[in-house]
Amino acid sequence: MGGMNSVTVIGLGSMGRALAETFLATGHPTTVWNRTPAKAAPLVALGAVQAADAAAAVAANPLIVACLSTFEDTRAALEPADLRGRDLVTLNSGSPAGARAFAAWAVARGARVLAGAVKNVPSAVGAADTLLYYSGERAVFDAYEATLRVLGGDTVHLGDDVDLAALYEMAVGATLLPALTGFFQGAAAVQARGLPVASMVRYSEKWLDMIRSQLPVYAKEIDSGDYGDGASAVKLFLSDAELNAEFTKETGVDTSWQAPLDDLVRRAVAAGHGEDSIAALTEVLRKPS
Amino acid sequence: MGGMNSVTVIGLGSMGRALAETFLATGHPTTVWNRTPAKAAPLVALGAVQAADAAAAVAANPLIVACLSTFEDTRAALEPADLRGRDLVTLNSGSPAGARAFAAWAVARGARVLAGAVKNVPSAVGAADTLLYYSGERAVFDAYEATLRVLGGDTVHLGDDVDLAALYEMAVGATLLPALTGFFQGAAAVQARGLPVASMVRYSEKWLDMIRSQLPVYAKEIDSGDYGDGASAVKLFLSDAELNAEFTKETGVDTSWQAPLDDLVRRAVAAGHGEDSIAALTEVLRKPS
Ligand SMILES: NC(=O)c1ccc[n+]([C@@H]2O[C@H](COP(=O)([O-])OP(=O)(O)OC[C@H]3O[C@@H](n4cnc5c(N)ncnc54)[C@H](OP(=O)(O)O)[C@@H]3O)[C@@H](O)[C@H]2O)c1
Ligand SMILES: NC(=O)c1ccc[n+]([C@@H]2O[C@H](COP(=O)([O-])OP(=O)(O)OC[C@H]3O[C@@H](n4cnc5c(N)ncnc54)[C@H](OP(=O)(O)O)[C@@H]3O)[C@@H](O)[C@H]2O)c1
Repeated sequence: MGGMNSVTVIGLGSMGRALAETFLATGHPTTVWNRTPAKAAPLVALGAVQAADAAAAVAANPLIVACLSTFEDTRAALEPADLRGRDLVTLNSGSPAGARAFAAWAVARGARVLAGAVKNVPSAVGAADTLLYYSGERAVFDAYEATLRVLGGDTVHLGDDVDLAALYEMAVGATLLPALTGFFQGAAAVQARGLPVASMVRYSEKWLDMIRSQLPVYAKEIDSGDYGDGASAVKLFLSDAELNAEFTKETGVDTSWQAPLDDLVRRAVAAGHGEDSIAALTEVLRKPS
Repeated sequence: MGGMNSVTVIGLGSMGRALAETFLATGHPTTVWNRTPAKAAPLVALGAVQAADAAAAVAANPLIVACLSTFEDTRAALEPADLRGRDLVTLNSGSPAGARAFAAWAVARGARVLAGAVKNVPSAVGAADTLLYYSGERAVFDAYEATLRVLGGDTVHLGDDVDLAALYEMAVGATLLPALTGFFQGAAAVQARGLPVASMVRYSEKWLDMIRSQLPVYAKEIDSGDYGDGASAVKLFLSDAELNAEFTKETGVDTSWQAPLDDLVRRAVAAGHGEDSIAALTEVLRKPS
């Protein structure tokens, strides 16, 4: 283990546990702490040192990786600890404002902060393709890059502003619950017909690939403000409201959560974007300044 | 061109034009018709025969591929035509009920019907990986499979029930507008920070890959009704409402379209699914019987 950075992981929920397991599996001496101490047991069995309290966990290593539910929880947990000279890496979800407030608090107490995000599920931690991005002082990232890279081969520094990871996490993450709910709606409908949900998976996967393939096109349209190539025009989405109502009638599945989307489409048409690319919805989502 | 099936394409919008171009490019003698005749000109330049009216277009070939906006439009356009002995392949969006009603009408007039869907954008028509699926009498599919396969290498017959393609299209397609709106929301936020939308594309692509990788897991959970493995638990999505409000404050971007999603999550928690996999939302989407 010579030369490996040792690390403290605090917060041993689904994600924190995966982080600690990966550090242990790659030979990093790892100290762990969790508010509910029992959750440390499987990690101790793998060789982790369990700290008695958060202050001891922080004292154990210069590098602290924290994966609690929120920035507020992280702050509350770290309150008793001496943060002077510590490098804190957060991997929880949160808003850009939350990241800035947390970093200001920790920096005032003598720490350096790298606020990051795991862009994947716990089981993907440690894989070559798993993406984690970090924001905050470049020097801190550089100092620990090799250590952090064991959590995912696609490890990126977004910039020196500590809130950038939170901004990107929320911007990028905004597709998750909407896309999943769409899938669950479809799944319920297929089941209502007496067919297995497994029968639609292959098609849904390809459909997501199709959506993925269009993102660079849409980004270009939004960056240029030119929505003129309406191959998938806003007006094509207009009939969805009607189809959704028929779909509910046919399958008994609730589609009402999509009503605000139909409304966005109608507003885009009313604003003159009917023939424009569906990416013109971006203009409607901007609040009037 | 010996041995190639000849084909009639009616409806030359974005998608119909791509279909006709692909038939022409692969050497199929192609007759076209569109309500607005001018749209046929680029296809005639590629070798298509332009029919004077829908009746003539239908009379020209046993195989008719129709890609109008809706089943109702297709029926209206075909009203003057003699459908006896014709094989009609529809590729428009529509509900399962719409597909059944259209097929009943056309069959009563002497046609056979295959109702299909193109699961991609017009520019993808003709590619080896492009998915199109069809439902209706297997014999009709078998008779034209080779011809239809030029529109996309991933050509599938879903079953003899003529409405299955519409069912799967709506089930599978339900992720599209929600996922795109999530992407556009994120794009508007990144722009509000003065950063190019292009800078988030790579992350958004990976994020969709991550979502895609979870679909088989969720399908299994829904098919089994066992949501017990809560690696991405419903309760993790509970904070979204709060984060969305902060996000709007920070970026000026409207997130209110997500309110019904937050409500679904809250209802799932209230129904006891807090620790369950997020796939348990499916149970909430089923209307009480
Ligand atoms: N799971 C995922 O798929 C995933 C993916 C990407 C990002 N994330 C993010 O990662 C973070 C953690 O997620 P998770 O899935 O690991 O959540 P989790 O399983 O619910 O675990 C939450 C952790 O935070 C601790 N905690 C919460 N409030 C605390 C407080 N006031 N003081 C001390 N400890 C506190 C909990 O301690 P106790 O054990 O004592 O309750 C637990 O260790 C979240 O921000 C989540 O959004 C998760
Ligand atoms: N574009 C896509 O990305 C895409 C992807 C998958 C599926 N689809 C589906 O494919 C179908 C066609 O889409 P599209 O993009 O080609 O739409 P489009 O560009 O709006 O074209 C619509 C076509 O329908 C014709 N039409 C409509 N009402 C008619 C009527 N009453 N009588 C005669 N012709 C009528 C139009 O004729 P005129 O030219 O005379 O108006 C035009 O040819 C839709 O159901 C759509 O949902 C589209």
